[in-house]
Amino acid sequence: MEVAQVLHMNRGMGETSYAQNSLLQQKVISMTKPITDEAITNLYCDTFPTSLTIADLGCSSGPNTLFAVSEIVKVVDEIRRKLGHESPEYQLLLNDLPGNDFNAIFRSLAGFQENMIKQMGDGFGPCFFAGVPGSFYGRLFHAKSLHFVYSSYSLMWLSQVPEGLDVNKGNIYMASTSPPSVLKAYYRQFQTDFSLFLKCRSEELVAGGRMVLTFLGRRSEDRSSKDCCYIWELLAVALNEMVGEGFIEEEKFDSFNIPQYTPSPFEVESEVEKEGSFTIDRLEVSQVNWDAADDDEVHKCDAFKDSGYKVAKCMRAVAEPLLVSHFGEAIIDEVFSRYTEIVADRISKEKTEFVNVTVSMTRRDCIC
Amino acid sequence: MEVAQVLHMNRGMGETSYAQNSLLQQKVISMTKPITDEAITNLYCDTFPTSLTIADLGCSSGPNTLFAVSEIVKVVDEIRRKLGHESPEYQLLLNDLPGNDFNAIFRSLAGFQENMIKQMGDGFGPCFFAGVPGSFYGRLFHAKSLHFVYSSYSLMWLSQVPEGLDVNKGNIYMASTSPPSVLKAYYRQFQTDFSLFLKCRSEELVAGGRMVLTFLGRRSEDRSSKDCCYIWELLAVALNEMVGEGFIEEEKFDSFNIPQYTPSPFEVESEVEKEGSFTIDRLEVSQVNWDAADDDEVHKCDAFKDSGYKVAKCMRAVAEPLLVSHFGEAIIDEVFSRYTEIVADRISKEKTEFVNVTVSMTRRDCIC
Repeated sequence: MEVAQVLHMNRGMGETSYAQNSLLQQKVISMTKPITDEAITNLYCDTFPTSLTIADLGCSSGPNTLFAVSEIVKVVDEIRRKLGHESPEYQLLLNDLPGNDFNAIFRSLAGFQENMIKQMGDGFGPCFFAGVPGSFYGRLFHAKSLHFVYSSYSLMWLSQVPEGLDVNKGNIYMASTSPPSVLKAYYRQFQTDFSLFLKCRSEELVAGGRMVLTFLGRRSEDRSSKDCCYIWELLAVALNEMVGEGFIEEEKFDSFNIPQYTPSPFEVESEVEKEGSFTIDRLEVSQVNWDAADDDEVHKCDAFKDSGYKVAKCMRAVAEPLLVSHFGEAIIDEVFSRYTEIVADRISKEKTEFVNVTVSMTRRDCIC
Repeated sequence: MEVAQVLHMNRGMGETSYAQNSLLQQKVISMTKPITDEAITNLYCDTFPTSLTIADLGCSSGPNTLFAVSEIVKVVDEIRRKLGHESPEYQLLLNDLPGNDFNAIFRSLAGFQENMIKQMGDGFGPCFFAGVPGSFYGRLFHAKSLHFVYSSYSLMWLSQVPEGLDVNKGNIYMASTSPPSVLKAYYRQFQTDFSLFLKCRSEELVAGGRMVLTFLGRRSEDRSSKDCCYIWELLAVALNEMVGEGFIEEEKFDSFNIPQYTPSPFEVESEVEKEGSFTIDRLEVSQVNWDAADDDEVHKCDAFKDSGYKVAKCMRAVAEPLLVSHFGEAIIDEVFSRYTEIVADRISKEKTEFVNVTVSMTRRDCIC
């Protein structure tokens, strides 16, 4: 399930969690901007297309939906002005699962476009928008129709919970106590999904087309590394407590697992090479504090509590729909009340970061 | 305003009116099918494209949204099978104003596609769908990207209420008692809008691309002909009664006009020739009874009442948002209660029909 889908499904959440999540997402988009800028600049300067088709996969619906593509378009407009070229026509394709709130995106487009034209001045555009519903683990666009594919914080969501996780007792994700078969099952699902993703995109991109993808990932080759698993382990702690106190049935808990995989740069590289359609231009790792919104603030005692609350809210936006569909509504407030305290405690005692893996690649010339 | 937009805005309506409207729309799609079939057949056989991009402009959101494009795709699939060709990739672009319920369309796609694949058998597709929000009186798609444009029962909606209608007192549309300046103002708005529509589509279609458009129109060259104006004249009768009884202010009534133009075949032809990008292949007129759903039934006394109710409900779905935004909610039930009686009376006494103008055309080769 894609982040965006999970977010949108979570109708019970207030504005705060969306905003918190927005800040985190926006921070990641800004941090990876040099990589995106380099890729789109090279693409534009290699071909000077009169029409430029850009797809954002897992666009979600919120303040970042249009922010990401507008940053890309701004880069192209700046170069083409410097070079004295006419503006290309932009076709901006916004993809997410069919349950995403495309209506909200579409209703915000007029204001967004007006604003863009004001910012960019005469001679900009035109920009054409379309919403493309569907899973990116399948074909979404017709052959050789895309120049640039962008995806941020969506591709760590797997197409499904891997099979064979019955033995992952006491955990809800890969963890240091997970049996090796669980770690393998997760990795295999990632391999299947990501290689299918690459195959589909290779059919849709023109030769020389580019792709910049950011995953929530990890630095270490250890699949159960704290890098990627800790945030879920703490949720498992809260759930385990509630099993112990009889609020949740043990069997129910043991059959719950998160459909996510947070790959290492090496694992990403390895799948790209195996699939064979793309050459990697850059592969980088960055990190962002769990409480990204507070990065620049001096932490005080109260601030840890506040950060714990914000991080838990952010994770709730992502995890609540998964929890509700498995456990029902009744336990949710209690789970997140406990989770908030656990997270606040951890933030106050140690460095807690999300790790991002960003890969920039170019579609090879088709030999076929 | 496009029919679809008006329909979708009407959140107060029950299922019946949508269904009634669906039946009328479906009837029109079926009646004009031979023209559409001929156009798509010729397009396919002239070029045998491996990728076929079809746009439905003013697609609405309801049972007919996917019905129209699926009928087109079926024709292509039948021919390519007969000829032993592989299926082209279909790109189906569904356009309507940004307020249309695209979420509803997107959520119905999985079931629709499953059904299509079942019906069409092996080797069909793939079909890629996208939602394209925006007014068709402006560019929507990038240059030379479309093969086939289809639009049914949307293009009679103007981009705005024409200016200079202050003198159209006692009427809400063109009527036999409208001053000539009113008829001219409506016609000029149609000319401006339709020629802009043609210019935009000429930029978006490939050379040899085709377009089949069905307007609600009229046979006669008299712009205030009963063909097109009667259904609105009867609504004006109801409103006039209520002005007389003090329910509606006269000034308020006099400033209300419907943003629609129902052209004759000659007027359509004339704009196409003036704009110059298209050659007309077919230009035809058809008609459908006001109470289209009951066409094949024997009319009895009670049936007239029933038909009056259905037609009024259908018109309510279209007109209510316009009326509400001008007069407010309070008068609506009373207006349509009176309108229902008036319509039932007319149906029982005379032949009452909607007239459809369908034009099929081909994009000329670009000399530029």
